[in-house]
Amino acid sequence: MKALIILSNPQSGASFCGAIASEALEVLQKTTNDVIVRDLYAQDFDPILTQSELATPNDQLSGEIREQIRELIEAEVLIVVHPNWWGMPPANLVGWIDRVIRQGFCYQFTERGVVTKLDGKKVIVFTTSNTPAEIEETLNHDPLKNLWTNIVANTVGFRNLKYVNFSSVIMSDAAQRESWLGQVKKIVTDQMSADRQ
Amino acid sequence: MKALIILSNPQSGASFCGAIASEALEVLQKTTNDVIVRDLYAQDFDPILTQSELATPNDQLSGEIREQIRELIEAEVLIVVHPNWWGMPPANLVGWIDRVIRQGFCYQFTERGVVTKLDGKKVIVFTTSNTPAEIEETLNHDPLKNLWTNIVANTVGFRNLKYVNFSSVIMSDAAQRESWLGQVKKIVTDQMSADRQ
Repeated sequence: MKALIILSNPQSGASFCGAIASEALEVLQKTTNDVIVRDLYAQDFDPILTQSELATPNDQLSGEIREQIRELIEAEVLIVVHPNWWGMPPANLVGWIDRVIRQGFCYQFTERGVVTKLDGKKVIVFTTSNTPAEIEETLNHDPLKNLWTNIVANTVGFRNLKYVNFSSVIMSDAAQRESWLGQVKKIVTDQMSADRQ
Repeated sequence: MKALIILSNPQSGASFCGAIASEALEVLQKTTNDVIVRDLYAQDFDPILTQSELATPNDQLSGEIREQIRELIEAEVLIVVHPNWWGMPPANLVGWIDRVIRQGFCYQFTERGVVTKLDGKKVIVFTTSNTPAEIEETLNHDPLKNLWTNIVANTVGFRNLKYVNFSSVIMSDAAQRESWLGQVKKIVTDQMSADRQ
């Protein structure tokens, strides 16, 4: 079983996002050694979708981006971890979405609706934020939940997506973060053992 | 009067976003010659907010980013133009928000609420999309309107912000686009002549 972990946090492994990714990796490795971790900051991912790349036929895309698209398509489990910055992921993950979840490659609009290569995946998105949950969910209309569970999931057919936010990280103590990592372990374990839809 | 136009589109001036920015520039130049245009693609803006930059004291930030922060603070009129990609701006504009609308410089959370240097501006955000408006507003919950009018505006105190989306650009003909540019002209003209709030 192939799995892909996408991490975007400027402190990489030293951040609480990094700790979530490590916890998820540990659970996945009980089942498979075929886990790819893409730490977008550490790997200096270029998020700029250029006009040249937009106009390039899929089979002539650069090797690097085709490799990342292939990893995404082949992954049976996809785990994404990032903080909430202005209700969005950091720019490198925004650009990862723009470049890697490529129309015509990963999914295509047709007269019969969307045809997608991504619909069988088990997907978990973990986000962290400092804004209190009630403000994020009311005044801000929970933008990251909307991004992942509506906009992305509806477009590419992620039918089995779980979205979890932890807040407020900045106000949390070590015991709280330890408890959250316990939740990560349980969520990943449960998602791994759930039937594919 | 100082004005700042931020454009993010991979085709820059050749795009409909570019045409909107040009139309806005033309209106602004009737009143002022002090207009800065930041075409993020053409100027190769680096959108990555690094840990090093996060940890840098404001007065030790790189000259380039301080210059852009100063431009933003000093602008009495701010016009932003970008397409809707996954309910977000392209990555370079996402990173412009992360890096330039810098907490502690442009705005600050205090015990008495947000103290901001950005609240007196007249702001217009023009977006373009291909998704039909009714899907964007219902299924997708109008994420760009939420980003600009709720999340950004509430945080930094843009009290006088007008948000306008044009769709579907891909389905539009030349006459439709000409009519939209007429709307841009009217909106910028009206916003310029409105009282500052």
